[in-house]
Amino acid sequence: MPDPSFADWSRERQQRIEGVLERVLPGSDAVATRLAQAMRYATLGGGKRVRALLVYAASEVTGADAAHADSRAAAVELIHAYSLVHDDLPCMDDDTLRRGKPTCHVAFDVATALLAGDALQSLAFGELDDAVACRILADAIGCAGMAGGQQLDLDATGRALDADSLAQLHAMKTGALIRGAVQLGVRCGRPPTPREAEALDAYARAAGLAFQVVDDILDVEGSSASLGKTAGKDAAQHKVTFVTLYGLDGARNRAHALRAEAHDVLASLHGRGRRLAELADWIVLRTH
Amino acid sequence: MPDPSFADWSRERQQRIEGVLERVLPGSDAVATRLAQAMRYATLGGGKRVRALLVYAASEVTGADAAHADSRAAAVELIHAYSLVHDDLPCMDDDTLRRGKPTCHVAFDVATALLAGDALQSLAFGELDDAVACRILADAIGCAGMAGGQQLDLDATGRALDADSLAQLHAMKTGALIRGAVQLGVRCGRPPTPREAEALDAYARAAGLAFQVVDDILDVEGSSASLGKTAGKDAAQHKVTFVTLYGLDGARNRAHALRAEAHDVLASLHGRGRRLAELADWIVLRTH
Repeated sequence: MPDPSFADWSRERQQRIEGVLERVLPGSDAVATRLAQAMRYATLGGGKRVRALLVYAASEVTGADAAHADSRAAAVELIHAYSLVHDDLPCMDDDTLRRGKPTCHVAFDVATALLAGDALQSLAFGELDDAVACRILADAIGCAGMAGGQQLDLDATGRALDADSLAQLHAMKTGALIRGAVQLGVRCGRPPTPREAEALDAYARAAGLAFQVVDDILDVEGSSASLGKTAGKDAAQHKVTFVTLYGLDGARNRAHALRAEAHDVLASLHGRGRRLAELADWIVLRTH
Repeated sequence: MPDPSFADWSRERQQRIEGVLERVLPGSDAVATRLAQAMRYATLGGGKRVRALLVYAASEVTGADAAHADSRAAAVELIHAYSLVHDDLPCMDDDTLRRGKPTCHVAFDVATALLAGDALQSLAFGELDDAVACRILADAIGCAGMAGGQQLDLDATGRALDADSLAQLHAMKTGALIRGAVQLGVRCGRPPTPREAEALDAYARAAGLAFQVVDDILDVEGSSASLGKTAGKDAAQHKVTFVTLYGLDGARNRAHALRAEAHDVLASLHGRGRRLAELADWIVLRTH
């Protein structure tokens, strides 16, 4: 039987992670009912699950089966959901639309959304099955990673940023969790060789940056309906983006160059990086 | 040489944990400078470090030396610091004074304080050295623990609570992390026997509840200056507390009964629970 197409593979994995998240999130028997509801609302039934797909795809490089990657894939999606809930809060981006639904603090209230984000972070760490994974995730999302990138983003409001500073900001804000997802995935199977670990890290850096460049393009080109979140937000906030720095064509060129780079570094993996290569294509060619 | 007095032991451990926290927190070389500063501000230079002392004291029951308990003691203090930062936010308690200083969002800003809390939580998990510890901490602070208790506290605003509901709220809001601290500590040395684990858990439940009963008493009796946080807050917010339910004398009797209970369950440990017993005394007899 031939390997499934990327469309079939990714659909199967998306359904799979939805089932895992459904299972690990607190349910209707939780004492703190409203908090459990907010956590489920913020996590289930939406999202492209790019980070979970990266965990699964990277785990195939070292021969792990999907079952060994489930809890790590869930952990990165729980972290992503927490970060969206907190980013959307009034004190941050003050956004009302996410994944095509009212944001968590609109559907519930600000205090509950704060706690839901906090509890989603804890739940993610509780899913990890070894201390190395715990450290990888903590490094990816802490002061030197995602949270630090958010802070740089706050600091940059209303200020000019050069290309290097913008790249660093995004390497931390969105790139670090994408790298973390790949690192967690590749450590699901046999230990990666140093060459594999290096290739995958180069892949993750390129894919992570490409993801953000395309996000900036879609914020200009997309509609809120197709994105499921508020479009045109960067311009409204006078943000420096890859589009304001390079123009639309320049940003598109950059995304395609990063896609080519991602493919190049995977070449040494003799086909075991196929899903990762397809994910890089999807990240760059997506329309939402 | 006789064992040091409790005053000497606790002072030594408080200094010790301060050094550990100083070392694990991001420093002046952090890219996200302001976030690192907020994390340090919220964590260092204050606090009774009750939870760290509980980790150290519990670790002595199974013969661990302090060095093995350091990172777990740091983890629980980082979690406690994160919870205070988020509790003090305008959308929660909206408080301006903590540990005798302006709260984190007053000293910095709300968005930075939000991120500082988030990053302190990540840092705590990054300090843990095994998956069991990770799960213990996650359970203690998630939807069924600290964050869930916060949600119950929000839900209770302006509503009558009976004694059982109040006890459950506090078993989650403050009790769960205190239990988690004891569980993390006792697992630093040789594996605890089932009887030891059971005795320590009974101890932690009693000590955790006593801690909250005394907090309620001090909120009525103490001054903001001696507490280092806003006094009289419960009454101002019309909160149901152990004092409104039982009166001042009733609450004091309850605290002393819990202290006796904590001592009783430690009796089976043949002296290895000495520091825990002393901590129970300190929790009940403290004036701030």
